[in-house]
Amino acid sequence: MSKQEKSQEREEVSLASRGGQSSVDETGEFCPKFDEHGLIPAVAIDAHTREPLMLAWMNEESLLQTLSIGEAVYYSRSRQELWHKGATSGHTQTVLEIRTDCDQDALIMYVEQQGAGACHTGRRSCFYRTISPGDPASLNFDGDRTFDPEEVYRTKA
Amino acid sequence: MSKQEKSQEREEVSLASRGGQSSVDETGEFCPKFDEHGLIPAVAIDAHTREPLMLAWMNEESLLQTLSIGEAVYYSRSRQELWHKGATSGHTQTVLEIRTDCDQDALIMYVEQQGAGACHTGRRSCFYRTISPGDPASLNFDGDRTFDPEEVYRTKA
Repeated sequence: MSKQEKSQEREEVSLASRGGQSSVDETGEFCPKFDEHGLIPAVAIDAHTREPLMLAWMNEESLLQTLSIGEAVYYSRSRQELWHKGATSGHTQTVLEIRTDCDQDALIMYVEQQGAGACHTGRRSCFYRTISPGDPASLNFDGDRTFDPEEVYRTKA
Repeated sequence: MSKQEKSQEREEVSLASRGGQSSVDETGEFCPKFDEHGLIPAVAIDAHTREPLMLAWMNEESLLQTLSIGEAVYYSRSRQELWHKGATSGHTQTVLEIRTDCDQDALIMYVEQQGAGACHTGRRSCFYRTISPGDPASLNFDGDRTFDPEEVYRTKA
């Protein structure tokens, strides 16, 4: 399917305007606050294990696409482009629920992680290192590789 | 205890330098990346229920204080000052574990939430609203108040 066809196929969605809110924390309208770069942080959590998988960023367009296609679409700050997670690796994230916080400047997404993992290093979660109590300059690894990133990204590229 | 005494009492901690890393995602050194405002996002998750409680920000000093005293100390972007969570409400967060991600530009903290809740609105979690599938301009509330914020903040102020 071409990009254009996919775009035409997706359901039209829109957000509420933030300007009209007297109280962002008690309103029933979704009016997310994007920062000065037009971005909002989104934390993907495994819907079944409750393990946090990654923290990435969305701009308004990526959030609308996420809502529309039901899969996580982020905004890559390094590549400065929309980033449909898993488009290369096949490790897409099916979004089951999105929550926002009192200030509406952060998002939590409960997702079904497809494939072997979320992290580009070949691990299930990006949060595979803990800070050592008493020696915060050093990290402990506790997430094993679940796939070979070189193979996955080479094959699917 | 005066501020000075508290500062003298806390254990000296330091982080690794980011400059020396050839590979931030495979290093065993903790060299967090702070953004252009000197901040890093930190997500507090209830260590027992695995419920995400809040997303807030830390600067280097607040992260060092967190590591040192074992309770969450954030940086308030609105007040532009260190924010020892619970200093007013008594709802401190005892930090059991801190994790960082592949890029070392985000933190997950597993905490024991003291008192009735983390959110200034009187709820246990700040993420008390879900986005309605099919109508993203509208939010559903699903977190009841567990305390009266006016009473808590008035009494303790």
